[in-house]
Amino acid sequence: MKALVYHGPGQKAWEDTPKPEIANDTDAIVRVDATTICGTDLHILKGDVPAVTDGRILGHEAVGTVDAVGAGVKTVKVGDRVLVSCITACGACRFCREGRYGQCLGGGGWILGHKIDGTQAEYVRVPFADTSTYPVPAGATDEQILMLADILPTGYEVGVLNGTVQPGDVVAVVGAGPIGLSAIMGARLFSPSHIVAIDLADSRLEAAKQFGADVVVNNSREDPEAIIAELTGGLGADVAIEAVGVPATFELATRLARPGGHIANIGVHGEPVTLHLEELWIRDVTITTGLVDTYTTPTLLRLVTSQQIDAGRFVTHHFTLDQFDEAYDVFGRAADTGALKVVLTRT
Amino acid sequence: MKALVYHGPGQKAWEDTPKPEIANDTDAIVRVDATTICGTDLHILKGDVPAVTDGRILGHEAVGTVDAVGAGVKTVKVGDRVLVSCITACGACRFCREGRYGQCLGGGGWILGHKIDGTQAEYVRVPFADTSTYPVPAGATDEQILMLADILPTGYEVGVLNGTVQPGDVVAVVGAGPIGLSAIMGARLFSPSHIVAIDLADSRLEAAKQFGADVVVNNSREDPEAIIAELTGGLGADVAIEAVGVPATFELATRLARPGGHIANIGVHGEPVTLHLEELWIRDVTITTGLVDTYTTPTLLRLVTSQQIDAGRFVTHHFTLDQFDEAYDVFGRAADTGALKVVLTRT
Amino acid sequence: MKALVYHGPGQKAWEDTPKPEIANDTDAIVRVDATTICGTDLHILKGDVPAVTDGRILGHEAVGTVDAVGAGVKTVKVGDRVLVSCITACGACRFCREGRYGQCLGGGGWILGHKIDGTQAEYVRVPFADTSTYPVPAGATDEQILMLADILPTGYEVGVLNGTVQPGDVVAVVGAGPIGLSAIMGARLFSPSHIVAIDLADSRLEAAKQFGADVVVNNSREDPEAIIAELTGGLGADVAIEAVGVPATFELATRLARPGGHIANIGVHGEPVTLHLEELWIRDVTITTGLVDTYTTPTLLRLVTSQQIDAGRFVTHHFTLDQFDEAYDVFGRAADTGALKVVLTRT
Amino acid sequence: MKALVYHGPGQKAWEDTPKPEIANDTDAIVRVDATTICGTDLHILKGDVPAVTDGRILGHEAVGTVDAVGAGVKTVKVGDRVLVSCITACGACRFCREGRYGQCLGGGGWILGHKIDGTQAEYVRVPFADTSTYPVPAGATDEQILMLADILPTGYEVGVLNGTVQPGDVVAVVGAGPIGLSAIMGARLFSPSHIVAIDLADSRLEAAKQFGADVVVNNSREDPEAIIAELTGGLGADVAIEAVGVPATFELATRLARPGGHIANIGVHGEPVTLHLEELWIRDVTITTGLVDTYTTPTLLRLVTSQQIDAGRFVTHHFTLDQFDEAYDVFGRAADTGALKVVLTRT
Repeated sequence: MKALVYHGPGQKAWEDTPKPEIANDTDAIVRVDATTICGTDLHILKGDVPAVTDGRILGHEAVGTVDAVGAGVKTVKVGDRVLVSCITACGACRFCREGRYGQCLGGGGWILGHKIDGTQAEYVRVPFADTSTYPVPAGATDEQILMLADILPTGYEVGVLNGTVQPGDVVAVVGAGPIGLSAIMGARLFSPSHIVAIDLADSRLEAAKQFGADVVVNNSREDPEAIIAELTGGLGADVAIEAVGVPATFELATRLARPGGHIANIGVHGEPVTLHLEELWIRDVTITTGLVDTYTTPTLLRLVTSQQIDAGRFVTHHFTLDQFDEAYDVFGRAADTGALKVVLTRT
Repeated sequence: MKALVYHGPGQKAWEDTPKPEIANDTDAIVRVDATTICGTDLHILKGDVPAVTDGRILGHEAVGTVDAVGAGVKTVKVGDRVLVSCITACGACRFCREGRYGQCLGGGGWILGHKIDGTQAEYVRVPFADTSTYPVPAGATDEQILMLADILPTGYEVGVLNGTVQPGDVVAVVGAGPIGLSAIMGARLFSPSHIVAIDLADSRLEAAKQFGADVVVNNSREDPEAIIAELTGGLGADVAIEAVGVPATFELATRLARPGGHIANIGVHGEPVTLHLEELWIRDVTITTGLVDTYTTPTLLRLVTSQQIDAGRFVTHHFTLDQFDEAYDVFGRAADTGALKVVLTRT
Repeated sequence: MKALVYHGPGQKAWEDTPKPEIANDTDAIVRVDATTICGTDLHILKGDVPAVTDGRILGHEAVGTVDAVGAGVKTVKVGDRVLVSCITACGACRFCREGRYGQCLGGGGWILGHKIDGTQAEYVRVPFADTSTYPVPAGATDEQILMLADILPTGYEVGVLNGTVQPGDVVAVVGAGPIGLSAIMGARLFSPSHIVAIDLADSRLEAAKQFGADVVVNNSREDPEAIIAELTGGLGADVAIEAVGVPATFELATRLARPGGHIANIGVHGEPVTLHLEELWIRDVTITTGLVDTYTTPTLLRLVTSQQIDAGRFVTHHFTLDQFDEAYDVFGRAADTGALKVVLTRT
Repeated sequence: MKALVYHGPGQKAWEDTPKPEIANDTDAIVRVDATTICGTDLHILKGDVPAVTDGRILGHEAVGTVDAVGAGVKTVKVGDRVLVSCITACGACRFCREGRYGQCLGGGGWILGHKIDGTQAEYVRVPFADTSTYPVPAGATDEQILMLADILPTGYEVGVLNGTVQPGDVVAVVGAGPIGLSAIMGARLFSPSHIVAIDLADSRLEAAKQFGADVVVNNSREDPEAIIAELTGGLGADVAIEAVGVPATFELATRLARPGGHIANIGVHGEPVTLHLEELWIRDVTITTGLVDTYTTPTLLRLVTSQQIDAGRFVTHHFTLDQFDEAYDVFGRAADTGALKVVLTRT
């Protein structure tokens, strides 16, 4: 089969590789019908994720059709259309029993396209298939469901639910890239009074409006603290969601939250930040961090099929699997191309 | 001044009475600009609420203008436009400190139009004014805010929040009168996948659709259990809200909830019900009851002003204060008149 | 091997039966080192549980040694000492993913000694071994850990956690049989100000004191409502736990809870109860029911090994496996024998 | 009367000052029967709290007898024995309605001995007396109840409840001064499996054992991370409580918490800390900060009177009010004197 193989920093190729086979009896082999590219894949290609080594097939998001299952797989059958989640769950360890699949101690967690071969390929081996795949509901398209592999649960779980967004809240979202937009879409489900999107790029703020932001702030020229203070009688946001991953945006998020407020970090950080405890110790704040667990996948599937969430809105570009070079290029130049999520499908 | 005075079962009159005066230094006297009639007022008129005695001015909902305040009132000033909540809160007892104002031990709770004179009058004395009134926000109409005196917080607190409605849930609402509609409107804030309204009258089910129900079931001719089973893979509703107050509807609600589900009772019951513990003991259900506390009033005010809630949708008929007889008649014959909430305003 | 086989109402025998074999690849065969008898087993013997048919081996609690495992078992190995929980969990269905194993949709739930052969035998087949057994921690005895198979998690989950016992609470426990005692022991973990045990038998109330009750009430001659009113300034108990399973005790529990209080039903009920909603609708109560899920087993194991819980306190009588007749007799006449839990061990 | 008056950094005097009078009608004047000194008072004396100006009477903790009340005080009467809490609550603002009294917007919060005259005096004026004092329960001593003015609710609310300590948890407490000991005493109420106290001074660790620590670690010579890893199978503490207020201890606390764990900051910080988000972003941690609200005072009163908490254990030294110089000296040299809390009483 063909797959997108990583060959060290800056090097990748759509090349022939052996088709994966059942290695453990709880595995499934899934034919990839649709896959996508994540910001994390760009980090890997820069060499920022040393666990990914030469020869690894990239990708951790897919919708596909089950091609084979191991003897121990109970609920997934050949021919089933399934969502392959970015998080693999053994289903039996302490953390999996608590729904904290991202921290799986039994061989799961984020492993696809990271520690084992991934989904940017014609076929992928999915360990612990019973607890790591989800049936695609009737009436939903591959493209919609593909957004549940990573981006939608990440914004919803790590941003919205960790941040405890409630009806009537003022929610600040710092960063309006795909993850910030996912948090905006997820926050909308709880009917906040105002979602305030903050970014340096007007194009991303325009997208934020489409995804449900009520107020947009370009912090290259506007003061988000002042704007939120005005909306909240001087108190600050009920919830501030960090969706970038650099010190300046995290510190901004901590300044935006009101006394008693929540700061939910989604961003992937590469360096320490300064936490102003000399101001925050007295302000009753709650700061959360998290890797997505995808424990909300069943809920999100219901929200998509009942049209409470318009998952397809993320998809800006379409390619076939053999166009990975072009797709990475378009996604990697999102500022120019306006790419949010690109979808690659089998021909 | 003029007021609507109760004179025993079936007897009421719009008559001259003394204008109320400050009795305690935390009182406010509020000029009533808009008031309404509650189903509870109909019960009182039938003689079902013996605590209400001859001579009592009825009514527990108003929006008005502060006419006088006692020396101990801190935050409310003469001339302020205020919401007079159905629940009065001393602010200092154990239950008030927990936000459980409906159970106030310090002389509050539901007292207006019940234990003391009420709001169906030109003026009303409001005890504990600092903790029992709310400023009307700029831009909101009297009529919208009047819906926050009782009906909206009742459906939201006792139905939706007690029932813990969550995104993606299937929510069954048994009874589509004004309280059931309030629960539907409140449940919508959490983006359930389906709200199923159940009633015997097609006209009320038609209203339920307007308020946000996705599915309507006339249980004089359709089987709500079967319809909900089909929506939920046979499991049952995540949340069942009882909004009638008779044994049959409560028992129906307990049959509609899934294992692990919630049954939130809003209805005012006059007799015991049968609880089928021989079936329910093993089903992990949670049953809640409650009198409204109005602790969500600040949240609901933000939801109205940010247009997340269309409070005005409840108002079907308008009268002036001197038209109480006609207003009670229209409200009391809701099945014929289609009345949900009638508003009476100062001329 | 030998096993205790049910042969219809009133009929049981310790007789030869085939040793169980691996039927599915996620099974384990466990040699029973210690088992016990549950009140439910007495119900079965009376013929009250029609799902149990002639030929069924009884029992759903054991500690044992793994004798064989299927090819799909990952974490359990031959020779491991394990707790066999009364609840079997497939680990993959909707409810298992939420920790609600008692409601398992994938073939688990309460099946041992009910729908499949149980633990009152020399060997037992345990389906879904990875998610239905727990390693016995070093230093703990079989007898202590055996109490985690059913009675301790039942009192803790269905009584204490569903009832949301908190430090400083007044907790009423109606019924001081083994399940009530388990609820008392579990409630103690949260440092309530008072645990009030209520029963008709002085001998059980004596046991309640040993398990941590602060106040005991014999309601054949004392008035529990008055006693709790005096302890609580007239308000009532924060939490009332029903641990009997008949209408009178459930209704008592609902009268004991304060406004805003919790009523947690543990009892197995065979008939409907009367719920006095005409009084309770306004009192903000929360009523919960539940079958044990055993999701707290890892926590309870830590509490036993750290000596926060004295699990061995339940064990009043010891037998060997071939003494089942005597053991059932002693356990069945608990009022005379003072039996709480009887332990049967391999010779 | 006499009072302890601050006269700038390093300067204080027990001197004659006017007896306070009712200034607002919700005030009470309380005769101080017992007061104590807080670590914050030492900070003030160093000049670290610029809001405290020359002429201010210090102190924010007292038990006393009501000497006079304003016309608007409802529930407090002359002659009542009351606890004067460190936090004053207006009872009507947004935050007071949520029990977040420390953030009171209506003129309360921490004001005694800070923005208005305090409790280290023969008499003190207490604003909002109905919501800022608590009756001393029968049978409790002044000395026990005095510990509820600040230190016990601080450890319990900001450490234990914010950290969500649960039965069976491993709880790390960094710092075993009075606040750390309070957190240990509060954590004990939830029956954790292990409380690990960490400090540089063996004398404080000895006290930690007395207050309920199971394991003590002197991190001048032992490695707390290794010790906690061994207790937790390598995962880390369920809850880490910071009770010092310097960067090194906060950073230690963040390293001690397991994936999914809680870090509850109690320490008063004077400078920023480094937050290692490059490691923590993926670990699902929750970090909380907070000023005490004293919303748990009613619960703590019940825990003291029911002997679930031994509040008197904090008191190491006794003085009379005219011995403030000596008392400050003993408290200020705690490392030498072993002082935890010193109590000064009226002669």
